[in-house]
Amino acid sequence: MALITIALDAMSGDHVLRAVIPAAFAELEKDPQLKLILVGEQTQIKAYLQAHDLQLSPRLSIHHASEIVAMDELPALALRNKKDSSLRVCIEQVKSGIADAAVSAGNTGALMATARFVLKMLPGISRPAVIATIPTVNNRAVTVLDVGANINCNEQQLLQFALMGQAVCQTIEHIPLPKVSLLNIGAEEIKGDFLVKRAAKLIQEYKHINYVGFVEGDNIFSGNVDVVVCDGFVGNVVLKVSEGIAGMILTMVKRSFTQNIFSHFCGVLSRPVLKSLGNTLNPENYNGSCLLGLKGIVVKSHGSANANAFAKAIAKAKLAVQQNLIKKIERGLQEITETSAGER
Amino acid sequence: MALITIALDAMSGDHVLRAVIPAAFAELEKDPQLKLILVGEQTQIKAYLQAHDLQLSPRLSIHHASEIVAMDELPALALRNKKDSSLRVCIEQVKSGIADAAVSAGNTGALMATARFVLKMLPGISRPAVIATIPTVNNRAVTVLDVGANINCNEQQLLQFALMGQAVCQTIEHIPLPKVSLLNIGAEEIKGDFLVKRAAKLIQEYKHINYVGFVEGDNIFSGNVDVVVCDGFVGNVVLKVSEGIAGMILTMVKRSFTQNIFSHFCGVLSRPVLKSLGNTLNPENYNGSCLLGLKGIVVKSHGSANANAFAKAIAKAKLAVQQNLIKKIERGLQEITETSAGER
Repeated sequence: MALITIALDAMSGDHVLRAVIPAAFAELEKDPQLKLILVGEQTQIKAYLQAHDLQLSPRLSIHHASEIVAMDELPALALRNKKDSSLRVCIEQVKSGIADAAVSAGNTGALMATARFVLKMLPGISRPAVIATIPTVNNRAVTVLDVGANINCNEQQLLQFALMGQAVCQTIEHIPLPKVSLLNIGAEEIKGDFLVKRAAKLIQEYKHINYVGFVEGDNIFSGNVDVVVCDGFVGNVVLKVSEGIAGMILTMVKRSFTQNIFSHFCGVLSRPVLKSLGNTLNPENYNGSCLLGLKGIVVKSHGSANANAFAKAIAKAKLAVQQNLIKKIERGLQEITETSAGER
Repeated sequence: MALITIALDAMSGDHVLRAVIPAAFAELEKDPQLKLILVGEQTQIKAYLQAHDLQLSPRLSIHHASEIVAMDELPALALRNKKDSSLRVCIEQVKSGIADAAVSAGNTGALMATARFVLKMLPGISRPAVIATIPTVNNRAVTVLDVGANINCNEQQLLQFALMGQAVCQTIEHIPLPKVSLLNIGAEEIKGDFLVKRAAKLIQEYKHINYVGFVEGDNIFSGNVDVVVCDGFVGNVVLKVSEGIAGMILTMVKRSFTQNIFSHFCGVLSRPVLKSLGNTLNPENYNGSCLLGLKGIVVKSHGSANANAFAKAIAKAKLAVQQNLIKKIERGLQEITETSAGER
């Protein structure tokens, strides 16, 4: 098997080097076919490695980048003024073919704008979408997009999300005919947002999208739909609310088991059960969202990701490379649009 | 103490009589100061009572209404064509002073349009907002509005939601200086939706609103904010996603405790702990959302509410009457706008 090379933006996110470098070592340890490039301020990276008694190797190199995009920097300014930022150089490694994928915990807007500028979009897609995979009650994951890249979408974009969501679900989740739905605030045809209604009409015209209608927020997790399409504002709220609630409930569970001596006793006995539940629900374990629609693989990590979470994002990028995601999306898009155009 | 009279829309929602009538009897049993009016098709109501061996009483009467608003009926059409619907007659009981509050599990849009038309709005408020109270990690509830009445809002409406949310929080939750926030998809000033940013600017001008900035979806449940302001589409998604995730996690918890003999044993021992947790998280127990900004109390129950859930909505309406909610909101609005207008 060929080596897979992934460029890591070492300077972005809340924890920068102390998340990225341990994550890199953990993933390299797991997979001898993996090669990683730490992109960023080389003096800082070298100092960190030295301080922690870590060494570079043929599978771990540094690529110097002199600038850093701040988390609150305007995307357009970052794109124009920071041509040597770790975020951008990372993506350029993908463009030039040095890396197969890039991972960054940086500013979503800047990452999207830069990736779009450097890598360009697949035919038929106007802007990248961020995709997230969320567990459901029947252990079948649901794919939600967009979860943060595009705040105000038009119906054409929602159609593109539906096309890409279906293609990803087919290739990554191995679901031959994924059920594609639109997030709305009522399952009835007449309800909800005008934009969502217009998008529904448009998506229905594409016979090769297996569109099953509107889904409400509570039904995202029922396992009844495979793809949930929404604009980036709403999708981001869905993702963050899910994380917030899961965190709250885990805290409540722990607290319930320490209320009195009896419950404490039950809690001690139940520790393995609770631990496995905690793992299932821990958002860290789902970190890493593909930016879809680009001619290259870029994975966005949560800004606050720690080493464990950042490692998951690296693993997701690796999977996307192994699965040949871009080619498959491109082919999926082609098939869907060609056949649909003929039939509709 | 004076009697409190509440009109119940007996013909709306998924379960109609079999949810509303048992809920009515349960609440009457609990409180001798409560009087309820079942509004709807009297033949059907009487038949139900007879079939279940239940009697009317001085505290439980029927008010006939010959029409029913369907769950998927367009609000404007319901308002124009169904002048004798159970939903509308219910609200008219409040207008005429016969009832102190109305409760309906009907079509949200129709309920809002009808309530607005019949009861009129408080000064300074353009459209009703639906308010929801959600538990947080530190047992302090968070008030979210709007959660479904107004799909596309402008910044003036978001300001009104902030004003009402603060007033409700002060009177119902007894928090003297509630922390008011705007839901956005990034806590940084530069991020998010243009509308939300304009609303932030506007709300900041009102010095008497204790505005604390943007909140992200995961921080709604942290207990760090008391009021979360958003448009009705996003708010409804927040509410439904919370319900969906809570339901999913409870199912997972139950499943975790039945995976093998050991976990099953822990589960049996932990039953009281798990039951109390289930109660805390069960959306049924939070059913009932006030329609705010009207000159009368109207509580919207979840359409799918069963008897237990509908009873909670009745209890919420009773609390709003007891707390003199409308007067307090009116006073709160007055104080806030008068002092703010002077100071800003």
